Amino acid sequence: MSLLVIGTVAFDAIETPFGKTDKIVGGAATYASLAASYFYDKVKIVAVVGDDFPQSEIKDFNNHQINTEGLQVKAGEKSFFWSGRYHNDMNSRDTLITELNVLAEFDPIIPASYQDCEFLMLGNLQPQVQQTVINRLTNRPKLIVMDTMNFWMDVALEELLDTIKMVDVLTINDAEARQLSGEHSLVKAAHKILTMGPEYLIIKKGEHGALLFHENKIFAAPALPLADVFDPTGAGDTFAGGFIGYMAKVGTVNFNNMKNAIIFGSALASFCVEKFGTEKIRNLSQQEIAARVQEFVSLSKFEI
Amino acid sequence: MSLLVIGTVAFDAIETPFGKTDKIVGGAATYASLAASYFYDKVKIVAVVGDDFPQSEIKDFNNHQINTEGLQVKAGEKSFFWSGRYHNDMNSRDTLITELNVLAEFDPIIPASYQDCEFLMLGNLQPQVQQTVINRLTNRPKLIVMDTMNFWMDVALEELLDTIKMVDVLTINDAEARQLSGEHSLVKAAHKILTMGPEYLIIKKGEHGALLFHENKIFAAPALPLADVFDPTGAGDTFAGGFIGYMAKVGTVNFNNMKNAIIFGSALASFCVEKFGTEKIRNLSQQEIAARVQEFVSLSKFEI
Repeated sequence: MSLLVIGTVAFDAIETPFGKTDKIVGGAATYASLAASYFYDKVKIVAVVGDDFPQSEIKDFNNHQINTEGLQVKAGEKSFFWSGRYHNDMNSRDTLITELNVLAEFDPIIPASYQDCEFLMLGNLQPQVQQTVINRLTNRPKLIVMDTMNFWMDVALEELLDTIKMVDVLTINDAEARQLSGEHSLVKAAHKILTMGPEYLIIKKGEHGALLFHENKIFAAPALPLADVFDPTGAGDTFAGGFIGYMAKVGTVNFNNMKNAIIFGSALASFCVEKFGTEKIRNLSQQEIAARVQEFVSLSKFEI
Repeated sequence: MSLLVIGTVAFDAIETPFGKTDKIVGGAATYASLAASYFYDKVKIVAVVGDDFPQSEIKDFNNHQINTEGLQVKAGEKSFFWSGRYHNDMNSRDTLITELNVLAEFDPIIPASYQDCEFLMLGNLQPQVQQTVINRLTNRPKLIVMDTMNFWMDVALEELLDTIKMVDVLTINDAEARQLSGEHSLVKAAHKILTMGPEYLIIKKGEHGALLFHENKIFAAPALPLADVFDPTGAGDTFAGGFIGYMAKVGTVNFNNMKNAIIFGSALASFCVEKFGTEKIRNLSQQEIAARVQEFVSLSKFEI
């Protein structure tokens, strides 16, 4: 039994109103697998990097018990690179540079030792690549969670819809839910998206928390109000990784477990934004995570 | 012991993507006192109308056990009139017409029978008028809740700050909290505003719920995700009225009671937006309210 995470492992260069970084390690699979590793010790990644990717970083994955057998290292090629600048409100950003490099021809090879995968996290990537991973697994995982973004709705809608059909949980933000459904009301948007394949839909609303939709049930999770958001990069991936990591830990797929998984994912994401890149989520203790989860409990608890 | 509500009683003409109304009865004190009346039977209003205001509407207040002795009817004058048009997203609107009429010279006279006021709701009005009401009460109420808006921050900031000093709870929306504090982070904004006088701050975030700040504690209440928002007019006033009505009912001012008051206020507001104007909140049953409150419980409950 294992949790397979597919997505980018990459370099980012980030500018926020608080400062800027040189090239640092980022990518959806990086954030998601690190977050998941706090809940589950059989996390395995499928991704591709160039030979510019530091061995020490691969070692750091392994220190988090993350299996990197499926991390392809392409000799003579460069890793995916993204650079962006956040606006003052931190809610919007401009992409400055996107260099696909190794990602342009990414063939997601699944090592034989990964075929025990029961939980699959499809990090944001070209939908066709996400779909290939599902097709290459001998047994369908117990839970497939898919993250995506508006870019694929613009340039690969048909592929995206084909892939969405195959998954159990879709995670997108509110603007993306509106775009995908053509509905302004999130309730109507959710009901439409739940007819497209997934049984569960998570709508991420950033500083306003997240909504989980399933059949006619809705769960609203708050976001932790933070005095400072230092760098939002990777918060969505960290959320998704914490979410599926917790689900793999508890093992049983149902609405109640997903509610808790959203709280654990939100807790991890609230750490992520406190420092640049993956810095904060590389060195968390279980005590810190438990204390942060308790903050979510106090924040939203009332007795009527 | 009573709950005094001060604010506008007025005519509105509303256009939304779903339709438009002729002149219908609105105003902050109308929404707030109707909402409060579901929790507390000693609601009294101080407001002013012209003799164009229908007797039948005053009778309807009385049918809700709302005392209208403090509702001044100015012979030969016209009631306050506001007309507005909502945009497609329902989150923004244009004011088409504002006719102050009787409101231009509103002197809030407090009948002697109102001096037993223990709970005071200052609906959105010129801050100087709100302050006059506080000064005219012989005994300071146990709880003073003040609603205001960005307009007064623009044109009467000093008066507004003087009035804010005198109240216990301030209710504003997120943009207004940012404007009043000069801080983008709502946590920083709240901490600054809590040094301006009020012990409690409620930040209303519309479809994203509300945040209650007190000392170092925060409570996040969700909004009920609705398939259709028919008319948002008066939702904030209804929220405030439900909030203070519930506080008057329980009688004891503390953080836990305020959390519940926010849920009851949010429940009333969720009804308000389902029809034009006050239509929906005029005829609610206690059963409907209890069922709606249970929806808020299911929406936000998790067990960790």
